[in-house]
Amino acid sequence: MITDPEPLPVAYEDVEAAATRLRGVAVCTPLIENDVLNELTGGRVLVKAEPLQRTGSFKFRGAYNAIAQTEARAVVAFSSGNHAQGVAAAARLLGRKATIIMPADAPRLKLDNTRALGAEVILYDRFGENREAIGARVSEETGAELIRPYDDPRVMAGQGTIGLEIVAQAAARDLRPDAAIVCCGGGGLIAGTSTALTRQVPGIEVFSAEPEAFDDTARSLQAGERLANPPGRVSICDALMSPEPGLLTFQVNRRLLKGGLTASEDAVRSAMRFAFSALKVTVEPGGAIALAALMSGAFDAKGRVVAVVLSGGNVDPGTFAAILAGD
Amino acid sequence: MITDPEPLPVAYEDVEAAATRLRGVAVCTPLIENDVLNELTGGRVLVKAEPLQRTGSFKFRGAYNAIAQTEARAVVAFSSGNHAQGVAAAARLLGRKATIIMPADAPRLKLDNTRALGAEVILYDRFGENREAIGARVSEETGAELIRPYDDPRVMAGQGTIGLEIVAQAAARDLRPDAAIVCCGGGGLIAGTSTALTRQVPGIEVFSAEPEAFDDTARSLQAGERLANPPGRVSICDALMSPEPGLLTFQVNRRLLKGGLTASEDAVRSAMRFAFSALKVTVEPGGAIALAALMSGAFDAKGRVVAVVLSGGNVDPGTFAAILAGD
Repeated sequence: MITDPEPLPVAYEDVEAAATRLRGVAVCTPLIENDVLNELTGGRVLVKAEPLQRTGSFKFRGAYNAIAQTEARAVVAFSSGNHAQGVAAAARLLGRKATIIMPADAPRLKLDNTRALGAEVILYDRFGENREAIGARVSEETGAELIRPYDDPRVMAGQGTIGLEIVAQAAARDLRPDAAIVCCGGGGLIAGTSTALTRQVPGIEVFSAEPEAFDDTARSLQAGERLANPPGRVSICDALMSPEPGLLTFQVNRRLLKGGLTASEDAVRSAMRFAFSALKVTVEPGGAIALAALMSGAFDAKGRVVAVVLSGGNVDPGTFAAILAGD
Repeated sequence: MITDPEPLPVAYEDVEAAATRLRGVAVCTPLIENDVLNELTGGRVLVKAEPLQRTGSFKFRGAYNAIAQTEARAVVAFSSGNHAQGVAAAARLLGRKATIIMPADAPRLKLDNTRALGAEVILYDRFGENREAIGARVSEETGAELIRPYDDPRVMAGQGTIGLEIVAQAAARDLRPDAAIVCCGGGGLIAGTSTALTRQVPGIEVFSAEPEAFDDTARSLQAGERLANPPGRVSICDALMSPEPGLLTFQVNRRLLKGGLTASEDAVRSAMRFAFSALKVTVEPGGAIALAALMSGAFDAKGRVVAVVLSGGNVDPGTFAAILAGD
């Protein structure tokens, strides 16, 4: 007797429903093909440019899809920055109050933008305080619903709309991706995206991309169980410094991903410079990790059609200028 | 008796034919709407992001449309950089040899990219040598056809496909532009774009945007005749340092434009920073002039739908880093 596999926390139909909710609200970001990148890799690389998304990263998609489905009049979120802006923008569009708990050392641009979107910001110490505890307290005190950055099926489904768009935009050019490389912090983006991609393109190979110091998903995929990163590590990829794979996201990613890639900090800087000079897109360090993995040779694109997600572009001008200068 | 106006050097039908030639070759660049920009201006601003075009600027469109219509096996062009890359890339795609005459002080990125596209580059002194004479000599010696950067109906028609795309992309969001602001050096981009826009959107107001020190088109529109810029001036907008309006382009622009706007060098830098931090698009100084004119208040967008063309993004990392740092 053949048994169906255990159902995953997010289903393909959830991603389709999210796409309906997001129509006319989220930006269908461009899928960029670049002659230089194709020549460098020997493949056809399709770059999904989520920095051009509302709030400058993919996080708006999941936040909006989650908040659109709750009755709560107020929401709270903890985030290093991009989820913060996504929740703030989505809450404002949907007429809800947003409180955001952010690390005190988050990039200034992300703090400023979150406040500019009308959210109340509470700062915490990334190394000394527990953001989940603060979130729970705000939630208890104000009745706000906690919108988790990745371990929420509604959030995963929203992020997964990127996968639907990639397939449709590639098809419009008579292309079908053989593989996809997607950045991975907690794993919500790649969980949703792989849900869409593996259903629409049977046989596609989806790889996570992580900083070398935060390779928890790569190691967890190999081990078949969730492994944490050693505490105290840092990376220029501020958006990808998650302690370990999400509980729900890893259920999806363990089933759907082909494997995990990593890239060095230098490869990330180099990919950011390439995105600036060749693609003309502002990419933040965490947003460049998939491109960095591809360009540094962690993945062989020769003769293949490869989708690469640039996930966000919220980087301080000073940081960006230093990286352009080669620092 | 009512007489038809004298026919212009480029017709709407030429732009439509160019769009057919460019289909699947040029990128249909995104039309970006940004919440922050809308709030700042009080209008709905639709930003056409040509830095994401092949070779990083709109110039590819006109170059390809021209070279596709010639029998010549070789082409030659003079250009501060973007037309150079456009011609080089188009010639390579169409199997022709390209020789490009570039000023020795052109941005390093533009020189390098032009050579990387397989073109032969001849450098000249912007202030001491006549680029047209050099072009004529190469043409005579090699039989190459000179592809002019703007005073060529085929080039204007190619650039005009931007206007067709703006209207179609706006219509997909149920919008119709009331006005458009387009950068202007020799005037080819705005001649073609206004040809498309004024035909498809009767009553639309199209404005040129120029650096304060190179406001020849603004002054010429007021005077009703071509006026030159005083010699020896410079601008950070290297792509817009034309001596005077083109002969053919001004025939079109005099008839179709509503007026000419200008922006200061500081406004250009500020617009580049905004494009970096909010739009996430790399824009070169000349490419930012229309956005600079809008954001510095030269045009009142309140309550209107305004299309703004970002024309190119080929800027050296060092220059860009200095501008990000506020220098």
